[in-house]
Amino acid sequence: MNISVIGTGSFGTSLAMVLKDNGHDVLMYGRNQEVVSEISQEHTNHRFLKNIDLNEEILATSDLKKAAVHGELIVLAVPVKAIRTVSGKLNEILRDLNKKVVIVHVAKGLELGTHMRVSDVISEEMTDETMTDVCVLSGPSHAEEVALKSPTTVSAACKNPDSLQVVQDIFMNKYFRVYRNDDMTGVEIGGALKNIIALAIGVLHGLEFGDNAKAALITRGLQEITRLGTRMGANPLTFLGLTGMGDLIVTATSMHSRNYRCGIMLAEGKSVDEAQEEMGMVVEGVNTTKAAYELSKEYGVEMPITEVLYKYLFHGITEDEAFYALMMREKTGETDKLEDLLEKQYKDWTRE
Amino acid sequence: MNISVIGTGSFGTSLAMVLKDNGHDVLMYGRNQEVVSEISQEHTNHRFLKNIDLNEEILATSDLKKAAVHGELIVLAVPVKAIRTVSGKLNEILRDLNKKVVIVHVAKGLELGTHMRVSDVISEEMTDETMTDVCVLSGPSHAEEVALKSPTTVSAACKNPDSLQVVQDIFMNKYFRVYRNDDMTGVEIGGALKNIIALAIGVLHGLEFGDNAKAALITRGLQEITRLGTRMGANPLTFLGLTGMGDLIVTATSMHSRNYRCGIMLAEGKSVDEAQEEMGMVVEGVNTTKAAYELSKEYGVEMPITEVLYKYLFHGITEDEAFYALMMREKTGETDKLEDLLEKQYKDWTRE
Repeated sequence: MNISVIGTGSFGTSLAMVLKDNGHDVLMYGRNQEVVSEISQEHTNHRFLKNIDLNEEILATSDLKKAAVHGELIVLAVPVKAIRTVSGKLNEILRDLNKKVVIVHVAKGLELGTHMRVSDVISEEMTDETMTDVCVLSGPSHAEEVALKSPTTVSAACKNPDSLQVVQDIFMNKYFRVYRNDDMTGVEIGGALKNIIALAIGVLHGLEFGDNAKAALITRGLQEITRLGTRMGANPLTFLGLTGMGDLIVTATSMHSRNYRCGIMLAEGKSVDEAQEEMGMVVEGVNTTKAAYELSKEYGVEMPITEVLYKYLFHGITEDEAFYALMMREKTGETDKLEDLLEKQYKDWTRE
Repeated sequence: MNISVIGTGSFGTSLAMVLKDNGHDVLMYGRNQEVVSEISQEHTNHRFLKNIDLNEEILATSDLKKAAVHGELIVLAVPVKAIRTVSGKLNEILRDLNKKVVIVHVAKGLELGTHMRVSDVISEEMTDETMTDVCVLSGPSHAEEVALKSPTTVSAACKNPDSLQVVQDIFMNKYFRVYRNDDMTGVEIGGALKNIIALAIGVLHGLEFGDNAKAALITRGLQEITRLGTRMGANPLTFLGLTGMGDLIVTATSMHSRNYRCGIMLAEGKSVDEAQEEMGMVVEGVNTTKAAYELSKEYGVEMPITEVLYKYLFHGITEDEAFYALMMREKTGETDKLEDLLEKQYKDWTRE
């Protein structure tokens, strides 16, 4: 199959390698001419995947139209904040070409301001004339490990089972196992909101809390993400899967996670701005906490960990206040609120 | 309340400290006279909780009858293999005393041979005349951290909501948060079967697999435990909780776990017997893998990771064979088989 990968970051590049290994004809697109030339001519992407040799048949272009012409299926591997612009441009080009493609995105996050899921942003920018279906591919997948062909599993979701089967077929191989899931909402919400917990775990680590406390935060954190996701229409079982607990585990237990590292800096007494400045990049978990807090109010879902973290990040409550607010909440049942939601929604999500 | 704790191991002792901190009158029972004297006189339990000072008001006895006379509620903190004998003895003593108690057990595992859950073993040995209800307390709770009053969360389960409320009330405090759960099956199965995954993760670690592979194994491992548990009558949401993913996370990411360490030895080429001998103790995960494999056949539930680990432990397949068997299975949906079970069982478990 002719496949284009938009974005030459670490994950886009490692996916291009998977697709090439599976015998597909892959063209990458990137804005940075230097990276594009390096991929096509040196067969490396030193900045994003150190010490990795790319397949020599993977070519890259800085001309988005060439990528649009090439791909029957297009993988969007760009940051969340670039999704709307890139989809809009692709839509224009494809309309002019009178061409229709399947889109697979791999972005983890919600659009700033609108709190929209990435697939909804793409669907808003593209039309029935240019896009057959939008799919998402997500899960616990450090790009470096994928590029080294270290065993990795991910979930793919799409509303149309036929397109979903295509995505599973083109990506899956002996080191990259893909599971189908028809719950796009759950897959996207899990990937987006996990960074809240990674950030909070970093704070706990910085404060030298123990393993029991970390396990509690991860578990209860996923529980409240599940409540919000379910309220937004997701299947709660998706959060028991690779894009839920799976991705959360790698993010919240790895020093590679910038959210985790940011949390440690906050615990050391640095401000949010100082921490982000020191890291030299935006820490998604900070904005995601705000987004999730606002969504929890909008949907009327209790999210005590998110709320406490929000107040800690933006309203200067102390660690002690945050801690006691969580531990001394009313006595509850473990899955009470989730069960209440399910009673109401079970029929909807099993039939979706 | 007058509470007796049967068992002077690390977890029993740390729970006695929690109960004493909450103002209860605690008497511990142990078979080892030396440990019993140390607790009552030195106010330490050096062998199981190094460098921890116990509350001076916690007393211990080696006379089971004294413990039975003292407790209105009795905590069974003994290993799974001792549960049947101890419950039987307690039953005799309580019957002679014409006394009825609430039992709370904290054992994680299934009875060898019968594969019975611990609460079922206790219910078989005690009668309506000696036991009001049997409850379970379980979750991600290293005893050492509980003893240090490091924040910890656990679930308590019981069929009778009144006894469950009592358990939550007596244990919960500002560093020990207890959630109620009415799903005893799920709480016990999660705690028992997590050791399978910890053992398998140890093998992966020994073989130098990456974070993606570990996250996959933990996630897909919990998924198949959830399938078996659901088939046995559990609520799948329980596995998203503290006794499911929570306990699994601390067990599968900690060198403190003997199952994890045993897996590393196996990957180094040692036999199961050699590994157990070197560790000087039984590794529960080995027997649990066998039990879960047999249960999966009995209940007709697919458990590919358990099956592969079983063949690796008991039938000498190689790591490569094990790995390819898992990665190259048929293409599946992420929650397909679980959803099938739920369709059939949803009505049962929401009403139970």
